[in-house]
Order: sequence, then structure tokens, then C-alpha cells
Amino acid sequence: VAAARLHRARGRLEAGLTLVEGPHVLAEALSCGIRPETVFYLEEDGATPELIAAWPGADVELVPVTPAVLARVAGTEHPRGPVAVIPVPATEPASGRDVVMIEVGEPGNAGTLIRSAAAFGFDVVFSPGAVDPWSPKVVRGAAGGHFHARLVDATSLHGRAHLVSVVADGLSVDQAMSALDGPIVLVVGNETRGAEPVRFGSTAVPVTIPMVASLDSLNASVAGSILMYEIAKHRAAFSHR
Amino acid sequence: VAAARLHRARGRLEAGLTLVEGPHVLAEALSCGIRPETVFYLEEDGATPELIAAWPGADVELVPVTPAVLARVAGTEHPRGPVAVIPVPATEPASGRDVVMIEVGEPGNAGTLIRSAAAFGFDVVFSPGAVDPWSPKVVRGAAGGHFHARLVDATSLHGRAHLVSVVADGLSVDQAMSALDGPIVLVVGNETRGAEPVRFGSTAVPVTIPMVASLDSLNASVAGSILMYEIAKHRAAFSHR
Repeated sequence: VAAARLHRARGRLEAGLTLVEGPHVLAEALSCGIRPETVFYLEEDGATPELIAAWPGADVELVPVTPAVLARVAGTEHPRGPVAVIPVPATEPASGRDVVMIEVGEPGNAGTLIRSAAAFGFDVVFSPGAVDPWSPKVVRGAAGGHFHARLVDATSLHGRAHLVSVVADGLSVDQAMSALDGPIVLVVGNETRGAEPVRFGSTAVPVTIPMVASLDSLNASVAGSILMYEIAKHRAAFSHR
Repeated sequence: VAAARLHRARGRLEAGLTLVEGPHVLAEALSCGIRPETVFYLEEDGATPELIAAWPGADVELVPVTPAVLARVAGTEHPRGPVAVIPVPATEPASGRDVVMIEVGEPGNAGTLIRSAAAFGFDVVFSPGAVDPWSPKVVRGAAGGHFHARLVDATSLHGRAHLVSVVADGLSVDQAMSALDGPIVLVVGNETRGAEPVRFGSTAVPVTIPMVASLDSLNASVAGSILMYEIAKHRAAFSHR
């Protein structure tokens, strides 16, 4: 099946397409205006044709397949639901919102950060060395977050202050934010290499999450999510209920 | 190799042993008093015998193996470092610290929560329906957190107030904590089923992380980690640097 090639970065780049798996993520994509080219589903799965029929404008090729073919397309042993081939949306210019710059390499961490960005109102940019944001594993990890967060161009971020997540000896978010004007870029470094504030010029500010046991560190997606949460709180973007 | 059976829950239960992979996690285990029974390592890997020799009290069987055997023991295709067979430590009685009760089923999420518990000073308890905390995948995800966090008995938690993470309509952590005395139990529910506050009796308090986009939810390990962070801040367990 040609769609299985979309598990490789080169296949996605050449085709401009990627894969989303499962009824939940597919429903999120459809409700956010994404129109799949093809949807593979199990012959006995009646829900998927119904889901597609609920979006009458969509010109979707529906392909019933066997479990073995679906597993091949999904790239997982026991896919639970449909697998859809969707066009990779173009990145957008940055808006006036804060941005999280993701440098992580692990697909699950990247997906989790996109999901948190959607929850806390951040735009998203991926560094060249990071995992591909449209890898099917990242899309799965984000659980629909791709269709609520905006993926933006790095080029439009020049001149912004960069807050860089570091394991120790950085400022608190409140200390860093109180000295800054305008939307910022939060940098979440690679899992093993971290991020060096100096790479982001003289406006870069190291920020650190306080911990009880300073020997320990946090998972990169947890650290990035806590910092987005703190920045959103500082912006008074939401009020406690 | 008999050690490969430790990837199954039954094999671990019968043997009272589990596996840890990689030089970093093994070093963390050794420094926290864990003594492996056996360490498998690649013949050309000189660092592992040196690491073991640095702990002279340890009566460790060192077994040089081929990459194929190491992959079999590790249960991953390309294990990077040694794989050690270690005894599963017994759970301890709860101390006076706050506890996170983990109900998640995904090994990566469980490991991430253990890592955050170590960072924010929480004891840890696993629900019967959750993933096994000593599954090698959970140990890998926690990156050494198992050896810094305390895994405690659920039986010693009767009478404590339970804060239950819910997606919407709960109190803020500050609202919930200001009405409570003594150490609490934070419940992080299963990824798909969530946690019902009523299951934890009349002392249960639903808590919710405020979000910009209330349609979206957070990854379970992110939500649990943000709540631990907020509770630790409320306790003034650490001061911002």
C-alpha cells in the first residue's frame, strides 16, 4: 500500500501527505476543516463511513480493508480505528501569540507538547533538528492537538525575547516575564542535549522550574508544559474556576 | 535467556525481579542502594564493568553478551547499554508526604509521573488497574525516578483527603488545598476512563487545570505533573530562585 510510505519523512515530504489514526483524531481533523484524500477502515467498521458522511463537502475515497492491510498502513500491530491520508497543512505566519519552539526528538514528547500548546494557547514552531511534527507517531501523541494549535514559521519570530528551559539556575517564569514586553518564544530543548540560551542571542533568558530534589530532572514534555502553563497564568489568559 | 521473561508481569511477580536498561538508570539504581543480581553488557563495552567495580559491596554476576542476546534481554531492537536484573523493592508504609495515586495504563505516562513525583517530593502509589510500576518500560520512562521516589502501600492512606484530577469543572489547586489539613492523595486517572471523585468517598475534591481552550485536554502525565507542581508550590516546598 502506497500510504505505508508516509511513515517515512521522505515519503511525507514528496507527497505532501501524512496519516492520522483512530476515530477520535480523525473526527478532530474533520471538525477543524481538514479533508482526507483517502480513509482506510475495517470492513465491519460501520462508524467510519458514517463519520465521513457527516461532512458532505469532503471528497473522500473510502477503502474497506482487512486487519492485515490496516496494520500495514497504520504501522502499528493492532490499529483500533480508521487510518486517514490527509494533506499536511502549510505553516502559517506567527500571530501575536506566545510561541513554543520544540527541539525534542522523541515523537511522544513532541505530540504531548503540541497538545499542551493547544490547551494553553501557544503557537508552535519546530526546530530543524527536531522530530517531524507531522510524523504519524507525533500526530498520535498529540491526540488531535495539531488541529487546534497553529504551526507557524520560524522566520517571523526575529526580535522576540526567547525564554529557554534549563534544568538548573534559570529565573522563574514570573521573574523572566515581568521584565519583558510582547509575545515571547519558549524554547524546549532536545531530551539529551538540552538548549543553550546563548544560541538565541542576547535577548535569551534561561528559565527553570523549581524542584524539591534538584538532582532530578523532568521529562522534556512535562517541563515544557509546566512552563507554558506558568506563562499563560502570568498573561492571565485564563481565570481559575 | 531467562531474564527475557521479566518483560512479562507474571515473570516479574514469580521472580521478584525486574530489568533496568542503560548506563544512566543503572548508575542511579546503584547510587540509591539497589544491588543487581546480573548485568548483561556488550563485550566491547568497557564502561559497565568499571561502573559495577565502583560499588565494591555488590555481588554482581557480569555477563558479556552479543548484540543479539542483549536485544533479546532488553526487549528493544537497539539497546544502548547494559541491562541489569534487579530485585523489585518492597513498597514502604506512607510517610507524612503528599502521595500521587497513579491509575494510568500507558507505561511512558506512568514513568513520567514517577519522575515528576521524585522532582516534586511526592510519594507514589499505583492502583490495582494501572500498569505495573516495575515494568521495564515504566522504569525506562522514569529515567531513574524509581530510585528517588518512594513507592508506598495504599493501605496506609485511609482518612486522607483525595484530590482527583478531572478535565473540567473542578476547583483550582489553591482553592482545594486551602480547605484541607495534612498530607493529601492526588489521583491521576486512567487515560481513557478518567477518575470519578465519588469512588474516593466524601473527602474527595475534584481539581482542574485551567486551560485557554476548554475543548482540549492534556496528556495524563502532564496533567498529573502540573498538579503535583501546584501542590508543592502551595506547600512552599521550594522557593523560586
